[in-house]
Amino acid sequence: MQKRIGTACIGAAAVIPCLAAAETGSAAAAGAAPPVIWLIAPLGAIAALIFAWRFYRSMKRSSEGTDRMREIASYVRTGARAYLTQQYKVVSVCFVVAALFFVLLSFVLKVQSRWVPFAFLTGGFFSGLCGFIGMKTATHASARTANAARQSLNGALQVAFRSGAVMGLVVVGLGLLDICIWFHVLNAVMGLTLVETTVTMLCFGMGASTQALFARVGGGIFTKAADVGADLVGKIEAGIPEDDPRNPAAIADNVGDNVGDVAGMGADLYESYCGSILATAALGVAAFAAEPAIRINSVVLPMIIAGAGIFLSILGIFFVRSGERATQRELLRALDRGINLSTIGIAVVSLLLVRWLLPGHAGIWGSIVIGLAAGWLIGKSTEYFTSQDHSPTRFVAAQSVTGSATVIIEGMALGMLSTMPPVVTISVATLFAFVFAGGFSHPEMGLYGVGLAAVGMLSTLGITLATDAYGPIADNAGGNAEMSGLEPHVRERTDALDSLGNTTAATGKGFAIGSAALTALALLAAYIEEVRIGLVRVAAQTADGLVRIGEKTFRVAEIQTADLAFFMDTFEINLINPKVLVGMLLGSMMAFVFCALSMKAVGRAARRMVEEVRRQFKEIPGIMEGKTPPDYAACVDISTRGAQREMMPPSLGAILVPILVGLTLGVPGVMGLLAGALATGFVLAVMMANAGGSWDNAKKYIEGGHHGGKGSASHKAGVVGDTVGDPFKDTAGPSLNILIKLMSMVSVVVAGLVVKYAPVVGAFLHMR
Amino acid sequence: MQKRIGTACIGAAAVIPCLAAAETGSAAAAGAAPPVIWLIAPLGAIAALIFAWRFYRSMKRSSEGTDRMREIASYVRTGARAYLTQQYKVVSVCFVVAALFFVLLSFVLKVQSRWVPFAFLTGGFFSGLCGFIGMKTATHASARTANAARQSLNGALQVAFRSGAVMGLVVVGLGLLDICIWFHVLNAVMGLTLVETTVTMLCFGMGASTQALFARVGGGIFTKAADVGADLVGKIEAGIPEDDPRNPAAIADNVGDNVGDVAGMGADLYESYCGSILATAALGVAAFAAEPAIRINSVVLPMIIAGAGIFLSILGIFFVRSGERATQRELLRALDRGINLSTIGIAVVSLLLVRWLLPGHAGIWGSIVIGLAAGWLIGKSTEYFTSQDHSPTRFVAAQSVTGSATVIIEGMALGMLSTMPPVVTISVATLFAFVFAGGFSHPEMGLYGVGLAAVGMLSTLGITLATDAYGPIADNAGGNAEMSGLEPHVRERTDALDSLGNTTAATGKGFAIGSAALTALALLAAYIEEVRIGLVRVAAQTADGLVRIGEKTFRVAEIQTADLAFFMDTFEINLINPKVLVGMLLGSMMAFVFCALSMKAVGRAARRMVEEVRRQFKEIPGIMEGKTPPDYAACVDISTRGAQREMMPPSLGAILVPILVGLTLGVPGVMGLLAGALATGFVLAVMMANAGGSWDNAKKYIEGGHHGGKGSASHKAGVVGDTVGDPFKDTAGPSLNILIKLMSMVSVVVAGLVVKYAPVVGAFLHMR
Repeated sequence: MQKRIGTACIGAAAVIPCLAAAETGSAAAAGAAPPVIWLIAPLGAIAALIFAWRFYRSMKRSSEGTDRMREIASYVRTGARAYLTQQYKVVSVCFVVAALFFVLLSFVLKVQSRWVPFAFLTGGFFSGLCGFIGMKTATHASARTANAARQSLNGALQVAFRSGAVMGLVVVGLGLLDICIWFHVLNAVMGLTLVETTVTMLCFGMGASTQALFARVGGGIFTKAADVGADLVGKIEAGIPEDDPRNPAAIADNVGDNVGDVAGMGADLYESYCGSILATAALGVAAFAAEPAIRINSVVLPMIIAGAGIFLSILGIFFVRSGERATQRELLRALDRGINLSTIGIAVVSLLLVRWLLPGHAGIWGSIVIGLAAGWLIGKSTEYFTSQDHSPTRFVAAQSVTGSATVIIEGMALGMLSTMPPVVTISVATLFAFVFAGGFSHPEMGLYGVGLAAVGMLSTLGITLATDAYGPIADNAGGNAEMSGLEPHVRERTDALDSLGNTTAATGKGFAIGSAALTALALLAAYIEEVRIGLVRVAAQTADGLVRIGEKTFRVAEIQTADLAFFMDTFEINLINPKVLVGMLLGSMMAFVFCALSMKAVGRAARRMVEEVRRQFKEIPGIMEGKTPPDYAACVDISTRGAQREMMPPSLGAILVPILVGLTLGVPGVMGLLAGALATGFVLAVMMANAGGSWDNAKKYIEGGHHGGKGSASHKAGVVGDTVGDPFKDTAGPSLNILIKLMSMVSVVVAGLVVKYAPVVGAFLHMR
Repeated sequence: MQKRIGTACIGAAAVIPCLAAAETGSAAAAGAAPPVIWLIAPLGAIAALIFAWRFYRSMKRSSEGTDRMREIASYVRTGARAYLTQQYKVVSVCFVVAALFFVLLSFVLKVQSRWVPFAFLTGGFFSGLCGFIGMKTATHASARTANAARQSLNGALQVAFRSGAVMGLVVVGLGLLDICIWFHVLNAVMGLTLVETTVTMLCFGMGASTQALFARVGGGIFTKAADVGADLVGKIEAGIPEDDPRNPAAIADNVGDNVGDVAGMGADLYESYCGSILATAALGVAAFAAEPAIRINSVVLPMIIAGAGIFLSILGIFFVRSGERATQRELLRALDRGINLSTIGIAVVSLLLVRWLLPGHAGIWGSIVIGLAAGWLIGKSTEYFTSQDHSPTRFVAAQSVTGSATVIIEGMALGMLSTMPPVVTISVATLFAFVFAGGFSHPEMGLYGVGLAAVGMLSTLGITLATDAYGPIADNAGGNAEMSGLEPHVRERTDALDSLGNTTAATGKGFAIGSAALTALALLAAYIEEVRIGLVRVAAQTADGLVRIGEKTFRVAEIQTADLAFFMDTFEINLINPKVLVGMLLGSMMAFVFCALSMKAVGRAARRMVEEVRRQFKEIPGIMEGKTPPDYAACVDISTRGAQREMMPPSLGAILVPILVGLTLGVPGVMGLLAGALATGFVLAVMMANAGGSWDNAKKYIEGGHHGGKGSASHKAGVVGDTVGDPFKDTAGPSLNILIKLMSMVSVVVAGLVVKYAPVVGAFLHMR
């Protein structure tokens, strides 16, 4: 035991001040690293926002096209705004309730820092602001992209891609800015210790997580309800083409693309981005406890890497251009050029940063690079399994000859098999990020390396998210072109962009899933830091100022300086503790139940949409002749209300289960829960995303004239696969990323509560 | 540290003899418990075999009916024998290879007891014998059941149920007999210590696991390939009814029911049955280290409970009878009466046994009872989700109105949601089995309690397996009646029995899945006992006789008397060790990949079957007019060869992955792998079984005249669901049970190898 706990603090009765004594102290006092480098982080954030603003202005200056185009665009914009307003109302209520709960935890029960409620609120606010800006940009950009497509493919790419870049840069800019401001306020202005600063800031991630959950789940339900309603009644029953203005759900369908793919994806990655930086910062404090001179550098390193990544992303964005008569292949190469430039740039820059800020720890650079490489590899494997250019998806398409059942079975099998490369990649990346950072001789350092791998993977998010967000803009531009009755070549060009977007979206999904897994791994370790602080806080409220874990008693100073292994051994967070194993089973179950709830929610919302579309076709005269416009707003409203109503049960589950498990099974149960949810949720998310993506592209492959082409029995079987895949890939699958991270975040935030009350509940249940 | 390691053994250099010194010694020397009670175990095993023989003889004495009926039955019998012969050939080769590998481990590398290769072989041999007897009985019984159904429903039930009971009793009889013989030989005759006896016997489970894997996966592929081939070409393309003798795949389809549902299910439960008893025995040695007087009783208690369970099962079987004119409901009540009698009986008897054999540990009785209750509850929840009498499956059926895609989505969602009751049940059962046994003050005792919960759940297997195995016999009887052209009321009666079987099969599935999860949990802890022995063995081969774990060094006596927490801490088997986390991710992935491989295997085998059936229809003249009999044997052969060929990749994966993970990531990686596979595999297995069961019954519900009835568009949508569900519920889902247990067993068997060589491999990979 002696080995594991450092030198005890003299005067352990003075509980909280002692925390400071064991610390490097505040930033102002440290002065070890030249603050000029630190400025890369806030400057990067500000640069991101400035360029986002520039791209937004330049997009707004281009023409929105004909009156009809403007009209359609304004419908979509109004619908999107209506959805967002409604969503933010619901979210605000939830946030107020949650903030009050945190006020209770912080000021009444005193198990948390009093900064937590505020950190929580700003995290949520900035995440919501990202969604708002991204959506506003996307809805303004679609008609302009369509209009640019009337001239050239490259022109359309420029408008769509720069608008996507607004989303990418706003996400990284606001995320990093919020982190920099809080770090400055808590550490330099308020003089909190590094430990307290970083664990308080982690709670900021909880706000972003909650916002992301609502955005992903709500957006996912909205978009699929509208999609299914538009397809089932419009295309199949009424026999009118996709995006036909006579379809009452057509606008809702277009709104859905923005809501789900732009706002949802943005919120998801905002959360991973902030979560990975904050978790790594917290792990840095633990890892560099013995090196006070550079301890604070380890905390700011993830922020600086993120800042440098932003500058390189902006540079990369400017490199995405090609000739006026570019082919699709050339456009793809242009996108790749931009991303590759940023990636190689950050690899080089981070080597310099590591050598400068963390002398003697050059190996940590390897952790960052392996994170970058892992993100790229997962993207490639997603592309391999879901693209119609490769054999797996073509094989799914070939099954359509024997009917829809074989398409479904083969797609499921493909999805399950496709989990292998991402899992192996993340496994290898985790192990080597740990090894490169020297984890097997110093586990805290290794975990810091794992956190930095996530930061590395996400450092070029500014540009990778841009290549992801422009897809739905191109999709919407196509919808606008269709509904405005533009020439066929415009639609062809937007379709080319859209299909290009599908390829790059594979990379984006790889980043989303891979970074969620790595971030969750880092959060698992960061959770222990919260537990440590929670124990100290609880001890401060007792008469003897001692810390109790089970039957054992410790001095506060022992807890403050104990290493992670001490907590693992003392709390028995091992694989024969039934609390851990039961937690794992429950975590695994949560992933499946969460998927079930969101899929059922889509079903219910879609049924209401189907009824509404049918009603309009029946009750509004002249709708099929195109004389009377349908009531688009009613459909948007149904999707909106459906999404709001249906997102509550799964969201509440994700928030309440970690609290309940924490109170009944304590810290070991929570760790088990998070590990189980991570292991199952990650694999299930990959399976659902890839099965769905493959069914989608198998249908497109058949429509391309294979196995009988459009209208054949094979095509019908392909459509069944695509319909099954929709909730898989757009609702349930992506929501799992959030589930994993949100459950971790909730656990982090309520760690103090669990530490204080789990022993009480356990005694009541005779579990101790 | 001192607390965790007991008093050191004097003269630690004498490595192996010291093991004995720390032990109670052999049974002959102990003499603490009256051996008369012990006899319940072998006598129960012998009674099971005697009654199995009686039931078999009495079944054989009844008439097989008309010549045509005999002919059809002989086709099925020949097909089944052909399959089994072929399977056992392949299995024998695999067993010889594996046994040679174990000889290498035991005699050359000396990391295992020299008894392991033999224990492995008998485990496999007895499991194979069960499959052979069960299959022989089932294929003899089907025509006789059909013949009895010409007279009365109850008569048919008696024949089918007693024949199912042969399977149930043979499984428990041979399983327990093998255990008793080995225990006597190793402990009493050879004089091995209790620790060595129990850990060697665990390896016996590996043979049963391997056999079970081949039976489940091979059987699952066989049955579904035949089923799909018969349905797709026969029913849909040629338009002839189910079980029509003109269908070349009809016999293969009937053989498949025996192969998959009788032999596969039997081997699965044989494995759980033996695995739970052996793991519990091993855990008993660790739990009662401080109470030498009753230590041996803790080892034999699971065997005695199993023996008592057999007597009560036999009693229960005799209570399954009803009036000659019984309705279906009355028959169900008769079955329930038998099961309830056995269940209540074993609850009472085990109280007496615990009080007698383990005085002062009455709480352990609670662990046994909670296992019994958990098995029952999981069965009920399976029934609720999959029966057409309840709303979930009716809701799936209702989705057929909007097409096959909505049926698939709703079925998937139902499957995912249905994981909640079994997971919560197993979680609560695990925690309370642990608590009742006093686990929070003595973890080893708690884990022994978890093992006993599994033993309790499986103690009435003799009768529960009978209610499960009679279903396919009734199904085959229906096929025989159809092909022999018997009167319609015969088919109606066998259909009634079959549908009754579907209800009781739900309970059987609950037992299979629940017991697999509990057994795997117990094996996780038992694995550490193997590691302990492995460490001692490796130390005996070193010059200084010391045990090395990582950088630390221990004396052999310390390892021999250390508690489980010592191993958790020293090996760092905790949730921040990346080896554990990566192991978990890989385990989770294994469950999905294994499902993917088996589903793809079904697809390939089914495609070959489709081609063969099409060929026969085209090339054999007069086949459709019923003038020329089709070539049944060719179809059986295709299914057989397909099953043999396709079962190898998933099986090899299941065997090799634990070895590879063990050698690269060591003991922590293995524990993570097993825990991840358990958490994900259990939940995924429930999902696939229930989704498949629900689709099956939703189709039947539609066929019952709902939503348009047979031949409607709804029915077509329902058929798609059923077809997708077939590989879910009959191939991939049940195979996951085996995957979980087999990976645990492989890890147990190669523990010595891993302990010796993982440090070498780790050093090479720079992971230490």
